[in-house]
Amino acid sequence: MDDNALINQKINQAVEILTEIGIDTWLTFVRETNAGGDPILPLIYGHDLTWQSALILTSSGKKIAVVGRFEKETAESLGAYQVLGYDEGISEVLRSTLMDLKPQFVAVNTSKNDVLADGLSHGMYGLLTDYLAGTGLAENLVSAERLIGALRARKTPLEIERIKTAVRTTEEIYRQTFDFLSVDKTEIEVAEFMHRQVKIRGLETAWETASCPAVNAGPDTPVGHGAPTEIRIKPGHIVHFDFGVKENGYCSDIQRVVYMLRSDEDHAPLEVQHGFRTIVQAIQQAVAAIQPGVMGIEIDAIARAVVIDAGYPEFKYATGHQMGRIVHDGGTLLGPKWERYGNLPEQVIEPGHVYTIEPGLMVPAYGYIGIEEDILVTESGAIFLSEPQTELILLR
Amino acid sequence: MDDNALINQKINQAVEILTEIGIDTWLTFVRETNAGGDPILPLIYGHDLTWQSALILTSSGKKIAVVGRFEKETAESLGAYQVLGYDEGISEVLRSTLMDLKPQFVAVNTSKNDVLADGLSHGMYGLLTDYLAGTGLAENLVSAERLIGALRARKTPLEIERIKTAVRTTEEIYRQTFDFLSVDKTEIEVAEFMHRQVKIRGLETAWETASCPAVNAGPDTPVGHGAPTEIRIKPGHIVHFDFGVKENGYCSDIQRVVYMLRSDEDHAPLEVQHGFRTIVQAIQQAVAAIQPGVMGIEIDAIARAVVIDAGYPEFKYATGHQMGRIVHDGGTLLGPKWERYGNLPEQVIEPGHVYTIEPGLMVPAYGYIGIEEDILVTESGAIFLSEPQTELILLR
Repeated sequence: MDDNALINQKINQAVEILTEIGIDTWLTFVRETNAGGDPILPLIYGHDLTWQSALILTSSGKKIAVVGRFEKETAESLGAYQVLGYDEGISEVLRSTLMDLKPQFVAVNTSKNDVLADGLSHGMYGLLTDYLAGTGLAENLVSAERLIGALRARKTPLEIERIKTAVRTTEEIYRQTFDFLSVDKTEIEVAEFMHRQVKIRGLETAWETASCPAVNAGPDTPVGHGAPTEIRIKPGHIVHFDFGVKENGYCSDIQRVVYMLRSDEDHAPLEVQHGFRTIVQAIQQAVAAIQPGVMGIEIDAIARAVVIDAGYPEFKYATGHQMGRIVHDGGTLLGPKWERYGNLPEQVIEPGHVYTIEPGLMVPAYGYIGIEEDILVTESGAIFLSEPQTELILLR
Repeated sequence: MDDNALINQKINQAVEILTEIGIDTWLTFVRETNAGGDPILPLIYGHDLTWQSALILTSSGKKIAVVGRFEKETAESLGAYQVLGYDEGISEVLRSTLMDLKPQFVAVNTSKNDVLADGLSHGMYGLLTDYLAGTGLAENLVSAERLIGALRARKTPLEIERIKTAVRTTEEIYRQTFDFLSVDKTEIEVAEFMHRQVKIRGLETAWETASCPAVNAGPDTPVGHGAPTEIRIKPGHIVHFDFGVKENGYCSDIQRVVYMLRSDEDHAPLEVQHGFRTIVQAIQQAVAAIQPGVMGIEIDAIARAVVIDAGYPEFKYATGHQMGRIVHDGGTLLGPKWERYGNLPEQVIEPGHVYTIEPGLMVPAYGYIGIEEDILVTESGAIFLSEPQTELILLR
């Protein structure tokens, strides 16, 4: 029921954004979503759809779902859509429904830049243009990228509450993990402990469980999206974590670092401290610069410069991404202008956006330092959703 | 490890099918698969991929993965692919890798007919043709529909074992459920009992949990893909179930029917018996006709005719679908020639295919009768993987 309320809010928000961006009609066209499906569905529908189905929203507030007859009741239970059922084929009812709306544009879920605005498969795009042949509508298909980017990015109060809950849970599991952590445990053993904490709470990891958490002990561990290894935690290791949960459909994504003291140490070596302070500074400066209207690329440049100016190699990924129903939630990216990021770094930051901030660097002979905080953009700048790590955690 | 063995088998099978169908090169092109992704990935890769990534297989046996550098180790751990990592953008290495192969055709995952062969989004298709501009390769893109259809459909011995295990588990949960079933329980209570049995075993339901199982008690329950309701089971009700599990990555999908005897009854009313025998006959006749080389539409017509000839309305869905990693596993469909089924009913049945057979009908005043069996096609015809229901289950 709470879910239905949230979905109805997002649907109404979509109607507002349609007006704002001057597109009159938005069509989400899907089938057998159980096999993957369009990532927009959890936001505006909340169930799988089996036969070819269309969700249509207009800037004038019309909300129409065309679904297979067996799914009519489910569609109606959401209380948002006028539901049209069909039996043998969708083409006729889809065509006539769209023609009645006399749309100037029909925005569809296709985007070269943003995977989350690109839920329309190439085959379904072909089917759609076949179905619309002769209506003149196929020529007015446009990308819903801006709409979907805004809809995913502008979190409602209900969505922010859910993200906060996921962040709190993640911090709690981190605390338990730091109590559990000790010399001679393997990365895999630590990851298994964290998986148990996720399972006990009836939750899922925020991304593929095999690499959530990432646990990186010392200088020889492969850093990236890989799975934890049999490497054992030793004194003199930096231990780096990247971890998040999905709770009530919303994600967290937090990195933390620990230093394992050697028997003769009571603080971390200077080069480890230097690396740690560099990352904390990169985060603080990036977060301080976040304001509505700023482009993602500007924030990325700030964090990136702090790391490079301190004498470290440039990190090979974006400083931060949006977070929501999916851990990499698309739209504006706090990233550099690299081919694989498309135009996302040049899009702007708005109130209600939630980002990660996650610069990183390698300290030779000790290991990887990456800290990742989750932040919310407000009218007056960013606030931390996670309690930022500003001190290196020292364990034996 | 067992998973890796299975994936390596499927990759080798794909190479053989490429030769068989006369296509030299197959390209799977994906990004951020965590947001939905291409349904082929579990068969030929088994992990998520984050940055734009390409899996390339050729009829000459080349197996190349182009992935973001952070995922190189994961890709290599599969032991199947020659792995090329990249940093800022995939286009250059992808273009040169493909050009070195001098392909006549490049099959990509796009299909109007089959959702499972349609994993390439329209935006990614556009990116791919941008990247290949000037190479002449963009003009030689063809659909991998036949390849993917065959690869998903032709189950290896390891895959058949996994499906059998999922079928056995489903039958076990049905037995427990029939012990649990009694007058005055609601559909929701029965579904919750079944969900607990799935959870206890650490499994998932074969499709969206909200409607797996479907539980339909009596004549007034909404039949279809909807969720169970607060309707209470009463004497004189047919109780219909549609349920399956996903175990070790493979699905089952079985329907069963129970009749709740009234206090003065010791067998079901004649019209219920007639409906039940009609469905059992439709299944038996359809299964008996299954042979390699027969088209799906021919089997559908047999089951459909039995139901219509017995005086019932035509069921408004296909008689059967393939089953595998996904409960509706694509390719040849035992269905009628309706728009929404595309060309799938005209494709042929082959050894190693696994199908459901699931005709249904309504018995006015009593409820819905649908039985669904899972079968395997062999060289000499079909064998049941599920133990077929040939007697109506009578409970009080």
